[in-house]
Amino acid sequence: MSEAIKINLPETGQERIVIVGGGFAGLTLAKRLARSDYQVVLIDKNNYHQFQPLFYQVAMSGLEPSSIVFPFRKLFQGRRNVFIRVTEVTRVNLEERHLRTPLGIVNYDHLVIAIGADTNFFGNDHLQRLAIPMKSVSEALFLRNQILDHYEKALTTTDYELRQGLIDIVIVGGGPTGVEVAGALAEMKKYIIPKDYPELDAGEIDIHLVQGGDRLLAGMSDQAAEKALHFLRDLQVKVTLNTRVKDYDGQHVYLSDGSTIRSAKVIWAAGINGNTLEGIPKETLTYGNRLLVDRYGAVEGLDHIYAIGDIAYMTENDYPQGHPQVAQVAIQQAKHLAKNFKRQAGGKERRVFSYQDKGSMATIGRNKAVVDLPSLRFQGAFAWLIWLFVHLFQLLGVRNRIVVFLNWVWNYFTYDQSLRLIIRPKSNNEK
Amino acid sequence: MSEAIKINLPETGQERIVIVGGGFAGLTLAKRLARSDYQVVLIDKNNYHQFQPLFYQVAMSGLEPSSIVFPFRKLFQGRRNVFIRVTEVTRVNLEERHLRTPLGIVNYDHLVIAIGADTNFFGNDHLQRLAIPMKSVSEALFLRNQILDHYEKALTTTDYELRQGLIDIVIVGGGPTGVEVAGALAEMKKYIIPKDYPELDAGEIDIHLVQGGDRLLAGMSDQAAEKALHFLRDLQVKVTLNTRVKDYDGQHVYLSDGSTIRSAKVIWAAGINGNTLEGIPKETLTYGNRLLVDRYGAVEGLDHIYAIGDIAYMTENDYPQGHPQVAQVAIQQAKHLAKNFKRQAGGKERRVFSYQDKGSMATIGRNKAVVDLPSLRFQGAFAWLIWLFVHLFQLLGVRNRIVVFLNWVWNYFTYDQSLRLIIRPKSNNEK
Repeated sequence: MSEAIKINLPETGQERIVIVGGGFAGLTLAKRLARSDYQVVLIDKNNYHQFQPLFYQVAMSGLEPSSIVFPFRKLFQGRRNVFIRVTEVTRVNLEERHLRTPLGIVNYDHLVIAIGADTNFFGNDHLQRLAIPMKSVSEALFLRNQILDHYEKALTTTDYELRQGLIDIVIVGGGPTGVEVAGALAEMKKYIIPKDYPELDAGEIDIHLVQGGDRLLAGMSDQAAEKALHFLRDLQVKVTLNTRVKDYDGQHVYLSDGSTIRSAKVIWAAGINGNTLEGIPKETLTYGNRLLVDRYGAVEGLDHIYAIGDIAYMTENDYPQGHPQVAQVAIQQAKHLAKNFKRQAGGKERRVFSYQDKGSMATIGRNKAVVDLPSLRFQGAFAWLIWLFVHLFQLLGVRNRIVVFLNWVWNYFTYDQSLRLIIRPKSNNEK
Repeated sequence: MSEAIKINLPETGQERIVIVGGGFAGLTLAKRLARSDYQVVLIDKNNYHQFQPLFYQVAMSGLEPSSIVFPFRKLFQGRRNVFIRVTEVTRVNLEERHLRTPLGIVNYDHLVIAIGADTNFFGNDHLQRLAIPMKSVSEALFLRNQILDHYEKALTTTDYELRQGLIDIVIVGGGPTGVEVAGALAEMKKYIIPKDYPELDAGEIDIHLVQGGDRLLAGMSDQAAEKALHFLRDLQVKVTLNTRVKDYDGQHVYLSDGSTIRSAKVIWAAGINGNTLEGIPKETLTYGNRLLVDRYGAVEGLDHIYAIGDIAYMTENDYPQGHPQVAQVAIQQAKHLAKNFKRQAGGKERRVFSYQDKGSMATIGRNKAVVDLPSLRFQGAFAWLIWLFVHLFQLLGVRNRIVVFLNWVWNYFTYDQSLRLIIRPKSNNEK
């Protein structure tokens, strides 16, 4: 289809807000603007919202992808002012106030950029090509297939070094994702592998967590970081601090301390970088490829363009270097922006945004989690229960909550699940 | 790895039975031989067993793939005489009594071929390339993605003919799969599309079922066939009998009566053909590319080689043209062969196989199914309940049964589910 054609959308006379990206920020905004006086167009390259905090459980065969994603269309059934378009945005044209997509052109009155951030490989081509990221449910699924594939291959590999490379694993980055993946892999090694692969010696599986800084969980308290380290070492994870991964050739991981680890898999959770949207002037970009916005979420120097969530860089008194790139910020910014749009429509003054930190948490394994609340810190089994219920509550859809809850109960009591499947969609002609 | 290397398997002194294929036949046999005096090696290209009767529900977004497949390793936990190898068999060498696989050579004392059948396109290259088969869960998943993709595309397509092609669908073959897919699509059109795609006119969606013979469900009673036809027409499915699909160019389906249907999707469920195993002499092949076996399941003219399930062609008094290629036959043959192996090990006489037909059934939609029992035929809501419980009972794994049951209850009462997701595994470097 020619890009010069306008995308098929009704002209209702309402002001049109186009939201690019259906993550926590974009989706929350669209939900808050449903049944408002605006026409809302939500554009995402997927037809579903993904619940990022549980990607690692998909990668570890603990949950099905479908349990932690939710189709946009089902979410907006009956919301007649919201239009979903599943496509990519190839370019924004600021003068013409429109977006280009492979499906055609979309005009906007207000554009909200909520395109989030993707894995940052810090310019290393080898890592970009060979390390496995985990910033989408599709990538988590790829990792799941890869882990299972490698265990299968290891069984029939007689060369010792080659086999070790297939069963060992290196996780780079000591943030929540890295810690959660390392913990989950360690539990898989402990509870699952001896049962599923009696031919392998589970004791030979090494799980490495490599962290550049001198502690884990940079955004959390020292107490949480220390306890997480303790939990991980308890689970036999080999945690290396103050060390960076310099290079990877698909077989060997080269560390900054001169040592080398043999591994056919590197999971990369060491940093993120704002996604780019062609047509947005480079001058509006700041640290981490984020868009500089004012306290209303408006992109500095541009008209009718907003940015919220991981892609936005907003400073306020308590956050002179911008907000942390977490779900809470995205959701709060989206809710705030929705209110401001409604205030504007009602002829009222807009208000400035302030972030309310409600705390943060990370889980390491069964009965092992760390929670930092604004006024309270705790770790262990109760923290783990809190972690479970907070995440369950945040999931979209009653069905998803039931399915995830049942899965967790099942896994807790059986120390097992039945999702260790290597499934890929395939048509006949791909044979 | 060189193919000259032997695959890594313990030499236990036991006679080794190698089973190729983990469908109903191969899996049942392996389960029955677990904890026997044989060493059992189960080879499959997937790491899971697939429950074929419910593929169509995966394709229709009614069930998750993981709910109807089950990992072999979990199934054989604790069965120390059973070894799983996830690989393809590239060739059998009859003189040397071994199989070649990409992982190495596997010797056998007894070889059981349970490789089943795949879609038969009757030599039409266009159909092979462009029509969508449904003989694996991966293909069902591909179809699910395709259906949803096309609805999304249709929304933004202004050309009338093009849009009709995207929303219409042609199903070829009036067997259980074709009937079940047509019914499920008709229900999706009726209950889901108006809610998910209010911008589309659901009434414009045409679902065609094209059947070569003069009735549906060839293996069942006339009564069942007539009722199925009635149910389908009730659901607005356009059923065409006595008509074959002659060709397809990706846009137009050419029928034997000279007419043409415009459709971007053709689902092909019109026939199957036995899979081939290189090295098996052509002379042992008979109708439908099946292997001619005696009443013990032994392949005619070959030593220590058996065939069971869809790939086997065994005649007996009531079945002068071979057994129907259905799960019941595969399961009964596998159980029988397991008993014969055990009899042989105990120095007893083998017995000949006789098929006990327990009946057959097909479902068209909610409260609409047809059941033929040996002494009773019935159709409608009760038949539908029977269909549900028989299939639920046959599923592997308690967790799968619970999940499928909950899904069905949920879907029944809400007329909806939340699995309409276009998910594909993806690594970062595939971007």
